Amino acid sequence: MPASTSNLGPGFDTLGMAVNKYLTIEAEESENLSLEISGEGVEGIPTDERNLTLIALKRILGKVPKLKMKIHNDIPACGGFGASGAAIVGGLLLGNQIADKKICMTDIYNTAIKIEGHPDNVSAALFGGLVVNAHGDDGTYSWINFPVDRKLKLVAVLPDIKVETQAARKILPDSISLSEAVSNVQHSSLLVAAFASGSYGIIKHAVRDKLHEKYRKKLIPHYDEFAKAALDAGALAFTISGAGSSCVAFCLHYRDRMVRETFDNLIDKMKLNWRTMVLEPVNKGAEILAH
Amino acid sequence: MPASTSNLGPGFDTLGMAVNKYLTIEAEESENLSLEISGEGVEGIPTDERNLTLIALKRILGKVPKLKMKIHNDIPACGGFGASGAAIVGGLLLGNQIADKKICMTDIYNTAIKIEGHPDNVSAALFGGLVVNAHGDDGTYSWINFPVDRKLKLVAVLPDIKVETQAARKILPDSISLSEAVSNVQHSSLLVAAFASGSYGIIKHAVRDKLHEKYRKKLIPHYDEFAKAALDAGALAFTISGAGSSCVAFCLHYRDRMVRETFDNLIDKMKLNWRTMVLEPVNKGAEILAH
Repeated sequence: MPASTSNLGPGFDTLGMAVNKYLTIEAEESENLSLEISGEGVEGIPTDERNLTLIALKRILGKVPKLKMKIHNDIPACGGFGASGAAIVGGLLLGNQIADKKICMTDIYNTAIKIEGHPDNVSAALFGGLVVNAHGDDGTYSWINFPVDRKLKLVAVLPDIKVETQAARKILPDSISLSEAVSNVQHSSLLVAAFASGSYGIIKHAVRDKLHEKYRKKLIPHYDEFAKAALDAGALAFTISGAGSSCVAFCLHYRDRMVRETFDNLIDKMKLNWRTMVLEPVNKGAEILAH
Repeated sequence: MPASTSNLGPGFDTLGMAVNKYLTIEAEESENLSLEISGEGVEGIPTDERNLTLIALKRILGKVPKLKMKIHNDIPACGGFGASGAAIVGGLLLGNQIADKKICMTDIYNTAIKIEGHPDNVSAALFGGLVVNAHGDDGTYSWINFPVDRKLKLVAVLPDIKVETQAARKILPDSISLSEAVSNVQHSSLLVAAFASGSYGIIKHAVRDKLHEKYRKKLIPHYDEFAKAALDAGALAFTISGAGSSCVAFCLHYRDRMVRETFDNLIDKMKLNWRTMVLEPVNKGAEILAH
């Protein structure tokens, strides 16, 4: 299951994009349940009934099956790259495989959203590409996804603090001005149009948010310095990835090194223990490799 | 200059779509200014300095030129189909023609928005197709437009009352809940994705608005009855066109007759003096035919 960046600025709880870091699950029948976890953020991932993959398995099968499972997580654990969404999607697909694929993808998608609470990361992990999600009157979601050209790169900056999604939601106001709402409607729509038509240059005009970033950036130290550095180095846009603390700069492919170097220099200068990485969009969602 | 429907449900002040009714302007040099207006809504179109085409001409040329002008308007005058946007775009393009095209299309577009006050209708009249607009930090707008397949039809219902755009704006609240804002971000984004990918079936899920229609429909008698009739007859969606009073049902091409008949029957039954018409999206914007 691929990692994902979500919101992409104006597309709050709407847009998710799959990127090339993965959570993988190996499972085989066994006499008991065993769960071995390796990779990023191991210490923060529960191995008991709070484990999201086990919760998802139970949702499909009615109970947690007896499996010998190995979960390996390469998705950065500081928050913002959809590790929990990938874990949920993995559990649902594994459960569905055990249940002989009795559940269609639309139901897998809606079940994943119910467990996660928002659609952006699980949809990207499931379908790949850029996914647009919307919540219907009947309580279910609809989606459309597009492939994203690999000439677009994401330079991620990964602080050494974790922002909990719930905390990042609590600081948002209950109501906003109509003009702020209209601004996000305009910019999220323009961003979708930019991706759908491959007009990546216009991303710099489209990534403009009034709903969440001004509140959430207070939880991310040095946000403004990194945003300025990204744009000065030629990035198209700089946004919080999901609820943070990770942030991403969207760049055309010939700018990613420059932007990453600029981030690394800033990290050195500020004596921070932060990481950077270059990510690529991936257009393939979750895969079942063998069974 | 083509007519346009705007908002399309969730895309308030964001989306415009050009349709096949036109406002045409003929102009020739003369010793005096003369203005002859024919067609729809003649009685409501001023011929003095408040005329939008003259205002637009003056904006480009610094003064109103001496021209013998004939404006013919086939755009329904009950409001909601962008007649004023077409009149503004026509004046700007005519002025630019007189000034030897000194102004680029981006400036024509932004000047048109300044005169009109919102981007959706003028952008559709200028560029054609479905246009997505967003207001940038520097005060100028950006846009992307897509062609719309002619298998999509719009069945319009035209009440015999005119809703003034200003009045329809005044009844909107200054602030809304975050969840309503997110709903419109999701649905406008999904609608753009549906048009960009030609997934017209999903329009029925995407046309869902929380920002303006519940307030504005109070200005349009029998809105709910027509909305229900449209959906019962197989339309994908029913929305207020712009600020009203016109409304449109979006249909696939094999449903337009059925929907129109349903509207006509309802009009007969209610003894209303209303009209209906079937409109088609047009992908060509304003044209200068000869000079």
